[in-house]
Amino acid sequence: MNTIGKLFRVTTFGESHGLALGCVVDGCPSGILLSEKDIQSELDRRKPGQLPVTTSRAESDKVKILSGVFEGKTLGTPIAMIVENEDCRGCDYEKLKDVFRPGHADFTWETKYGFRDYRGGGRQSGRETVARVMAGAVAKKILAAHKIEILACATEIGGISGDPKEMAAVIERAKSEGDSVGGIVEIVIKGAPAGLGEPVFGKLSADLAHALISIPAVKGIEFGSGFEAATKKGSEQNDPMHMEKGKIVFDKNDAGGLLGGISTGQDIVMRIVVKPTSSISKPQETVTKDGKNTKIQVTGRHDPCIVPRIVPVAESMAAIVIADHLLLNLHV
Amino acid sequence: MNTIGKLFRVTTFGESHGLALGCVVDGCPSGILLSEKDIQSELDRRKPGQLPVTTSRAESDKVKILSGVFEGKTLGTPIAMIVENEDCRGCDYEKLKDVFRPGHADFTWETKYGFRDYRGGGRQSGRETVARVMAGAVAKKILAAHKIEILACATEIGGISGDPKEMAAVIERAKSEGDSVGGIVEIVIKGAPAGLGEPVFGKLSADLAHALISIPAVKGIEFGSGFEAATKKGSEQNDPMHMEKGKIVFDKNDAGGLLGGISTGQDIVMRIVVKPTSSISKPQETVTKDGKNTKIQVTGRHDPCIVPRIVPVAESMAAIVIADHLLLNLHV
Amino acid sequence: MNTIGKLFRVTTFGESHGLALGCVVDGCPSGILLSEKDIQSELDRRKPGQLPVTTSRAESDKVKILSGVFEGKTLGTPIAMIVENEDCRGCDYEKLKDVFRPGHADFTWETKYGFRDYRGGGRQSGRETVARVMAGAVAKKILAAHKIEILACATEIGGISGDPKEMAAVIERAKSEGDSVGGIVEIVIKGAPAGLGEPVFGKLSADLAHALISIPAVKGIEFGSGFEAATKKGSEQNDPMHMEKGKIVFDKNDAGGLLGGISTGQDIVMRIVVKPTSSISKPQETVTKDGKNTKIQVTGRHDPCIVPRIVPVAESMAAIVIADHLLLNLHV
Amino acid sequence: MNTIGKLFRVTTFGESHGLALGCVVDGCPSGILLSEKDIQSELDRRKPGQLPVTTSRAESDKVKILSGVFEGKTLGTPIAMIVENEDCRGCDYEKLKDVFRPGHADFTWETKYGFRDYRGGGRQSGRETVARVMAGAVAKKILAAHKIEILACATEIGGISGDPKEMAAVIERAKSEGDSVGGIVEIVIKGAPAGLGEPVFGKLSADLAHALISIPAVKGIEFGSGFEAATKKGSEQNDPMHMEKGKIVFDKNDAGGLLGGISTGQDIVMRIVVKPTSSISKPQETVTKDGKNTKIQVTGRHDPCIVPRIVPVAESMAAIVIADHLLLNLHV
Repeated sequence: MNTIGKLFRVTTFGESHGLALGCVVDGCPSGILLSEKDIQSELDRRKPGQLPVTTSRAESDKVKILSGVFEGKTLGTPIAMIVENEDCRGCDYEKLKDVFRPGHADFTWETKYGFRDYRGGGRQSGRETVARVMAGAVAKKILAAHKIEILACATEIGGISGDPKEMAAVIERAKSEGDSVGGIVEIVIKGAPAGLGEPVFGKLSADLAHALISIPAVKGIEFGSGFEAATKKGSEQNDPMHMEKGKIVFDKNDAGGLLGGISTGQDIVMRIVVKPTSSISKPQETVTKDGKNTKIQVTGRHDPCIVPRIVPVAESMAAIVIADHLLLNLHV
Repeated sequence: MNTIGKLFRVTTFGESHGLALGCVVDGCPSGILLSEKDIQSELDRRKPGQLPVTTSRAESDKVKILSGVFEGKTLGTPIAMIVENEDCRGCDYEKLKDVFRPGHADFTWETKYGFRDYRGGGRQSGRETVARVMAGAVAKKILAAHKIEILACATEIGGISGDPKEMAAVIERAKSEGDSVGGIVEIVIKGAPAGLGEPVFGKLSADLAHALISIPAVKGIEFGSGFEAATKKGSEQNDPMHMEKGKIVFDKNDAGGLLGGISTGQDIVMRIVVKPTSSISKPQETVTKDGKNTKIQVTGRHDPCIVPRIVPVAESMAAIVIADHLLLNLHV
Repeated sequence: MNTIGKLFRVTTFGESHGLALGCVVDGCPSGILLSEKDIQSELDRRKPGQLPVTTSRAESDKVKILSGVFEGKTLGTPIAMIVENEDCRGCDYEKLKDVFRPGHADFTWETKYGFRDYRGGGRQSGRETVARVMAGAVAKKILAAHKIEILACATEIGGISGDPKEMAAVIERAKSEGDSVGGIVEIVIKGAPAGLGEPVFGKLSADLAHALISIPAVKGIEFGSGFEAATKKGSEQNDPMHMEKGKIVFDKNDAGGLLGGISTGQDIVMRIVVKPTSSISKPQETVTKDGKNTKIQVTGRHDPCIVPRIVPVAESMAAIVIADHLLLNLHV
Repeated sequence: MNTIGKLFRVTTFGESHGLALGCVVDGCPSGILLSEKDIQSELDRRKPGQLPVTTSRAESDKVKILSGVFEGKTLGTPIAMIVENEDCRGCDYEKLKDVFRPGHADFTWETKYGFRDYRGGGRQSGRETVARVMAGAVAKKILAAHKIEILACATEIGGISGDPKEMAAVIERAKSEGDSVGGIVEIVIKGAPAGLGEPVFGKLSADLAHALISIPAVKGIEFGSGFEAATKKGSEQNDPMHMEKGKIVFDKNDAGGLLGGISTGQDIVMRIVVKPTSSISKPQETVTKDGKNTKIQVTGRHDPCIVPRIVPVAESMAAIVIADHLLLNLHV
C-alpha cells in the first residue's frame, strides 16, 4: 500500500538508511515542463535547517530523475525520481536494535513484520516524506497550469499561535529540556474550480483526509469550521450565497470550500495537528524486543519540533490529491 | 468512486427517491453465518425515531439479500443487498428543483454533473448511508469472529457533553427555533490485534480517516489525544510501555491505539465532528439555478440533529475498514 | 474480484438460482439517455432460443434499473440493474450436490471455498453473463455517442466455418449424440479512434484479453493475424502505411488495429475460442465430493453449443473495455 | 497504467535510452531471502546473445536494489530495483525521429501523447521488459517457497517446431534476408495448488492473459487445448476424473489446469504467439510525422527473432500473476 491516487498515482519506496528513497509518478500527462530544479526547490524547503532550531543533521538530498522526462518535458510515462542516502558509517543504531522507542512505530512494525530495518527508523522514518515532496513537486506543476496554488503554514506551535519569535522560543525551550513540541498546520488551496471531488467514497474531503493523515505524526484533520462546528447552529454554519457580477458568491466559508465533499470554488481550508516529536532525550520507560522493562534516552540530532518541516509535506500531499481529482474530473 | 476497500470491497448505489438503495459487498470470506436479520438489526439502529426528537418521517427500510448467501452462510461471492424506497406521492420537491440550499451539495453537484436528482437530495441525501450500514453489518460479522467490537456514541451535542437529558433539550430547543445543532461522535474499536494497518498510504489511521470523513456532514477527525497533541510535550504525548504478565502494556493511550498508523493492540480511539443539519426552517439567503438572489426556508420533517443517527453509520464505516485490514494482514 | 474497469467500473453479482443477478455500473458519465428498453434489447439477444437448436429453457430476464437514471438520463451516479431469477420449484439439483461435473468448476470452486451454491452452477453458471450484457448495454450507449460500433459473430462452429445451415446441422448432430460442440467468435470494433490504450500493463489488447478470457468457456484469444503470425516473416506481418487524402492509411491490418497495444484507428479485430459446452448427457467418469469414483450424465435442457449465445456477451465485454479506455484517454 | 497486480503489485518505469529502467515491487511479504544475485541470474537469461543468432548489442544490465531488503531479507516494504542504461553516444536515432516504423508503436504513441522519446523506441522498446524480469525474479522467490515452478520454452520458430538446430537455421536465413521470424512460447506452471484464481473478473486465466498479452509482440494466448477446442466435442474436451491414492486425478489436461478460471492442481499450460520482430532491414513503405510517403530500412543490430528472449519475460509475467494469486488466496 505504498501507492496513492487513482489517475495521478504515486508509489514511494525507500528506507532512511538504505541506498535511496524515491517515487514513481504514473499518470502525469505528457508535455508538462519538468526539470530536476523544479523538484529540488521543493526538496530544499523540506530540509532541516529551515529554522535555526531544527535538526542540524546535514542532508544534501539531491534529486535524480530516472525516467519519464525527455527534452525537458514529461512523456506521459512513469516519472521515477530518487534521492540517494548518504553513507552513515559513523551512525550507531545498534543500541536501538532491540528496544521499542515510545511514540515510534518500532513495536507495531516489529509485531506486523517480525523484522525491520532499525537503522534510523527504516521506512517508518520521517525521511520517507522526501519521496512525497518529490511527487508533490510534479503535482504542483499540474496545478500551476490550472492556476491552483497550495499554501500551508504553521499556525500554532507548542500552544503558541501567531508570533514566529515566540514559536521559535517555545521550540528552543523544549530542546533545552530534552523534550519536544507539536503544533498545527493550516493548508489553503487557492484557485480550485468548483466541482472537484467524487461521491460517495471519492469525496475530495475524504481523499484529502486520507492523504494528510498518512503523514507521519499527524493525528487529526478538520475542514472549514472543523471541530467548532460541534457547537454551532445550522443557521451559523451554513454559508449563505448571493449573486455578484453574475457569479455565485458565498458570504463566508465555514464549509472550508467543500459541500458534499465537492469543491465550491472557494478556498479549500483544512488544518492538521502534528504531535510532538517522539524522539526525546528525556528518559522514558519502555520495553525491549525480548520483553524486559528498560529506560531509554533517544539521543542524536533530532528535531525538537517537526511542524515547520511538515509544511511542504502537507502541501505535497494536498497537491497530489488535487492533481488526481483534476484528472478525474475530466470525464464526469 | 462509489467503492471502498481493497479486499473487503463495498460498492454502494441509490438515490433517496429512486427505486432502491443498496450495496454489493465483494471479498467477504465464505462460510460466515449471515441472515437478513443481522442486517436489519443494524438498519433499525439508523432509523429515525431513535430519540424522541429526531425526524418523525417513517422509513420502513426492509433489507433484501439478493445474492452471496446460501443456506444461511456466505458463499465468498458478492453479497448484494437492497432496501426499496417507498413511493413518495405526496412529496413536493418541485420547489427545491431550482434553488441551491445553503450547506447542501446542491450547488456543487449541479456544477459537477450539470444535472441532478433534486428529489430529497438524490444521491447526496443522508439516506445514502442506509447502504453503508448494510455493508457495515456484514463487516461486523467478520469482526465478531475475531472478537473485535466497535462502539460509538455521541459524546457532545450542541455544545453539551455528557448528560443525555441536556443533549435532548438542546436539540429540542434548536428544533423549536427552526434551527439545528451538531456534535461529536467518539468511536472506539475494542479487541483489534496489534499489527493492523499498512505503511505508507495504507495506514489504518489514514484509511479510517478516509472512511469516516466520507460520511455526509462529518467535518473533522482526530485520533487519541488528537488536536490536544498540539499543546503537549513529547514526554507527555508518548505512551510509555512496560511488561505485565509477559505482555507489553502501554501506561496510557494518547496514541489512540495507533503507532505509525498501525494498531498497537490497545483500543483504537477516534472522534469525528458532525456539523449541524443543513436543512433548517429559518429563512436563509441563497441563489437560484438561473442566478437570482432568493430566500429559502427548508420545511418538511428534518432532523434538527443527525448526530445520534450517525452513530451506527460511523460504526459501519469503521467496521468496513477493520474488516478490510484483517484480510490485508493475512499476507504480510 | 467481481469488478472490472478503471474509470468505467462494472461490479456484478448473483447466483443462477438466487433471488437476482445484477450489476452496478459506476463511472458512467452523466447526461446519457438510458432506458430499460436499451438494456432489454441486448438482454434479449443473449436469451436462449436465438437458434432453433439452443436450449428451450424459458428465461424471461426482465431488467429493472434501480438507480443512477433520472428523467431518462444517467445521473453520473452508480447505475444498479437487476434481473430477478424465476422460482425453480420443479428443479432437481440435489443429485448434482455431491458430484463434480467434468469440465465444470464444481471441483475447483469446492476446493477454493469449501462450500458452494450447487443449484445450476450457482455463480459459476453461464447465467452470470446476464449481468455482463446489462453493463455492456450501458457501455454501448457511450460508444454510440462516439460512433463506435462492436460487431461479433460466430465464424466457426464444430469445425464448420461460414455456412450457417451447416453450423446448425453440426450442433443438431452433437445434440442427438448427447454431446456438444464449440467454436470461434470474431469481434470487430469499428470506429475506435487511434490512441486508445495505455502502456505498459494497460494496453488495450491486454485489457481486452483480460475481459474476454474472463467469459466462461473461452480458452484463447488472438488479435489480427494472431497465431498465424508465428509462421510469418516481419516483412509479411508489418502493415505498411501511406498517405491518402491527408490521412495515414494502413495497406492491410495484420496488426488487428493495435500497435504497441494502442489502437491505430483501423478496425480492432480479435477472435476467441469457445470450448464445447461441458454439460453433456453422454456418460462421463468422475468423482464425488467424498472421494468415490462414479459416472455422471448431465441431463436437463442444456445448450449443445453456447457459441451463438456468447456473441452478445463478447460484444459486451469489449464494449466495457472500450468505454473505459475512452474515459481514460481524456487525460493523457 | 504501469502497475500490475492486486496484492503483489509491480510498477515499472524507464525508457530505453533514459538514465535507468526499473521497477517497484510492493506487497512482497517480509522475511524472504533476496539478493541482487537472485535478480541478476534472471536478467542474464534475458540478455541478447543467448543464441548465437540474437543481437550482438552488448547490454551489461546490472541490477541495483535500492530498497526493501535488509540483511539479505525482504522487509515487507517496497523493493525498488534499477538497471542503469549505458550511455549511447555513438547511437544515431535522429533519422527515426520523424518517421513511423511499420509494426512499431511509433504512430500510435505519437497520436496518443503528441510527443515521444524516439531514441530506440523509448518506453515502447522491448528493453522495457528488463523491469518485468527483475520483478518476476522476486515473484519466483515466493513461488519457490511454495514449490511452484514456471517453465517456458520456444516450441515453434518461423514455422519450425521441435528441432533447435532447424529453428536456429530459420532465424539465420531470415537474418540474411534482412527479415525476421516469430514463433510460439509454451509456459507451464508446475506445482500450483488447486484453488488459485477468483471469480468472475479475477479468474487466473484472465489475469494470465492480461499479463502475457501485455508483453510487446505477443498477439495471442491459449490455454490447454486452446484453439483446437473449437473443433472438439464436449466428450473429448472434458477431462474425466478418478480417485488415485485418495486424491482426485484428472485423466488428461485439455483444460490446461484451469476450470472456471480456477486452478485444478494440474499443470497450468498456456501458449503465446510472438510476432516476427518489427525492425527489419528490408525496405518498407511508410509515412513521416509530417505526412509524406517514404521508404524505410531499419538498420542496426536488431534481433531477427525475439522468441528466445521472450521466454524469461513470459515466465516473469506468469510468476507475478501466480504470486499475486497466492496472496489473494489467503483470505477466501
